[in-house]
Amino acid sequence: AIRYLSKRRQERVRLIGDTLCQEGFDLVLLQEVWSEQDYSDLKVKLASCYPFSHYFRSGVIGSGLCVFSRFPILDTLLYQYSLNGYPYMLQHGDWFCGKSVGLPGSRAGVTAPLLSLSLQLHAEYCRDKDAYLPHRLVQAWELAQFIRHTSKAADVVLLGGDLNMHPEDVGIRLLRGWTGLRDAFAEATHFEGCKNGCTLVPDNCFTDKSELLPFPLGIRIDYILYKAISSFTVKCEELKTTTGPAPGMAIPFSDHEAVMATLHIQRQGQPAGATLGTADPALADVVTEARTEVGVGLRAAQQQRYSSGRMAVLALLLLLLQAAAALGTLAGLGTEQPFPKLSFCLLAFLALGVLVLATGLHLFHTMEVKMLHSTEDQMWMVLRALQERP
Amino acid sequence: AIRYLSKRRQERVRLIGDTLCQEGFDLVLLQEVWSEQDYSDLKVKLASCYPFSHYFRSGVIGSGLCVFSRFPILDTLLYQYSLNGYPYMLQHGDWFCGKSVGLPGSRAGVTAPLLSLSLQLHAEYCRDKDAYLPHRLVQAWELAQFIRHTSKAADVVLLGGDLNMHPEDVGIRLLRGWTGLRDAFAEATHFEGCKNGCTLVPDNCFTDKSELLPFPLGIRIDYILYKAISSFTVKCEELKTTTGPAPGMAIPFSDHEAVMATLHIQRQGQPAGATLGTADPALADVVTEARTEVGVGLRAAQQQRYSSGRMAVLALLLLLLQAAAALGTLAGLGTEQPFPKLSFCLLAFLALGVLVLATGLHLFHTMEVKMLHSTEDQMWMVLRALQERP
Repeated sequence: AIRYLSKRRQERVRLIGDTLCQEGFDLVLLQEVWSEQDYSDLKVKLASCYPFSHYFRSGVIGSGLCVFSRFPILDTLLYQYSLNGYPYMLQHGDWFCGKSVGLPGSRAGVTAPLLSLSLQLHAEYCRDKDAYLPHRLVQAWELAQFIRHTSKAADVVLLGGDLNMHPEDVGIRLLRGWTGLRDAFAEATHFEGCKNGCTLVPDNCFTDKSELLPFPLGIRIDYILYKAISSFTVKCEELKTTTGPAPGMAIPFSDHEAVMATLHIQRQGQPAGATLGTADPALADVVTEARTEVGVGLRAAQQQRYSSGRMAVLALLLLLLQAAAALGTLAGLGTEQPFPKLSFCLLAFLALGVLVLATGLHLFHTMEVKMLHSTEDQMWMVLRALQERP
Repeated sequence: AIRYLSKRRQERVRLIGDTLCQEGFDLVLLQEVWSEQDYSDLKVKLASCYPFSHYFRSGVIGSGLCVFSRFPILDTLLYQYSLNGYPYMLQHGDWFCGKSVGLPGSRAGVTAPLLSLSLQLHAEYCRDKDAYLPHRLVQAWELAQFIRHTSKAADVVLLGGDLNMHPEDVGIRLLRGWTGLRDAFAEATHFEGCKNGCTLVPDNCFTDKSELLPFPLGIRIDYILYKAISSFTVKCEELKTTTGPAPGMAIPFSDHEAVMATLHIQRQGQPAGATLGTADPALADVVTEARTEVGVGLRAAQQQRYSSGRMAVLALLLLLLQAAAALGTLAGLGTEQPFPKLSFCLLAFLALGVLVLATGLHLFHTMEVKMLHSTEDQMWMVLRALQERP
């Protein structure tokens, strides 16, 4: 829902509000609510059925994440991924949104502190030549680390959002393997909705048909993941997706189908023990695979850092050369003006512009290299620990 | 320790390495190790006495944070503060460092998972007119939230670093009040070192004397804070600071005095209960005070966002006007060249430069406004919760 750009935005926001009111969920996690005004409108409309809500602000535009809940939200925390695309890729607006994970801790019923995460990872713009894969893997890794570190005192962890990854992608396997989260679609006793649980389907009038050509059924990129931490068990009884147009309307709610899960949360007799330590032997392979991809991204970023640094140095040299020439002329070394003044000035401005841009790019790619390097290191640390474990 | 800039850097790094080897601490948290080469040198030197270490990479330059430990480091997580000064304040390099809090979880002895945090907050450059106070408060708040969310499964939380705040400052009171962390200096049974525990003292040959004129004894800005979470108790038996030159040398280790604490960690019979809920009635006042300061920063940021936006619009208008004039001339509306070509071009480049810079500033201040606003909101949520509690 981008203001002025998204089609039939207000109508759809109104429709979403009406449906949420009718359905009466316990917890609603929304993504891509880019306009804070839309959030405020929803908040007013939903005040009676969802008295508690929170909007996560971040980046230039906002995170687009918001939460509506029947139960009190005790606390919130926003973690912004350290890498999120490139500011100069204006047509892929991800950098400006400050993609993040929002953590509202809420207390459902009397006893269970629930940790729910609403999130969105970097979009995939071209599957064959996916330049953002390393960034998305860093995000998946940071997300997994964030969950591991924050979930320890919760009873149930619930994650919902647009992960922008196919179910078998390395990022999903990494996230699930390293946190032990289970996929509601795979675990659901009963399923109803689009085939294969797809949420980005060609039938939807807001999706880009050409993108979905290789996937005639659509793609499943929106997930509900969950796990129980302490003395609780969670079971997914039913999973549903919306299928096309909203009931009685000509348009769907959004370009993605919504995912709805009915979870059965039950207190067990004794604590289930440390469920965080995932002893999956395949985990090491997944981490290795992810680390390789991050390494590829690291080398590309190093290359870009080098190129932009070289460009900055060249621009600086040109400027110095021009300054020397100008000084020479002023000092009367050359009696005549050797260059036409106008082109001399234009060249100087051009060099200055290139210098500023290239320096900015160099700084940006330096940060990118640092974060990719750091993720590679962390993954290596985990691999070593996994191998040492019997 | 900034490469090429800091005085007698390599000598001091060598000295620090030697002393750490001799003293044989359990855990060492270092700040402002800006050069990764220095970290690598230290790592090699300390391999026998501190087999485990980690360097936290972030920002353009790095976080400067590193950890050396006698016990295995199980996991690490880096949280970058969402606000950290301004990229255009080149002389105050904070923005480029990506100030952050590093969390190495380690296991000391057999049972106690220890959460130690190494960190540095934004520097205070002018106490009377402290433009960075709102940023530092946002950092203190984010730090407190980060500790609350990550510490729940730890037995002991240990925080060490340069907080860049005086002991009675609102940021420190906020951090301590909201997390329940205790100040090792206040709790220590035995103290030895600079008077009042000061770590930035005028006697140190690397400090800026003029900055310390209002504080003849110095300032205490480096802290060791701690708390026990579960069935443990922590007591600070001894606190020491270094006092001036390293033993047998003419120079001190650094511009700040080092802080060393001997902590006695003991397992209790029964769990101490939820020590996170701090029922301090003064807490609401501290949060209110901090929220007021954040509000002041918010209004300043909004003003700057508005000014830069207006500047960008003006530059754009000038460019459009020039384009119209140029097109008019080309179309032959004016038969003669009305402006000298050179100044016309210069003006256009100037306008373009201003447009780019002002747009960048506008985006940056938009992010700043979002983060300050979000912190203000979170503080309000906490205040409401505090007031509802009996």
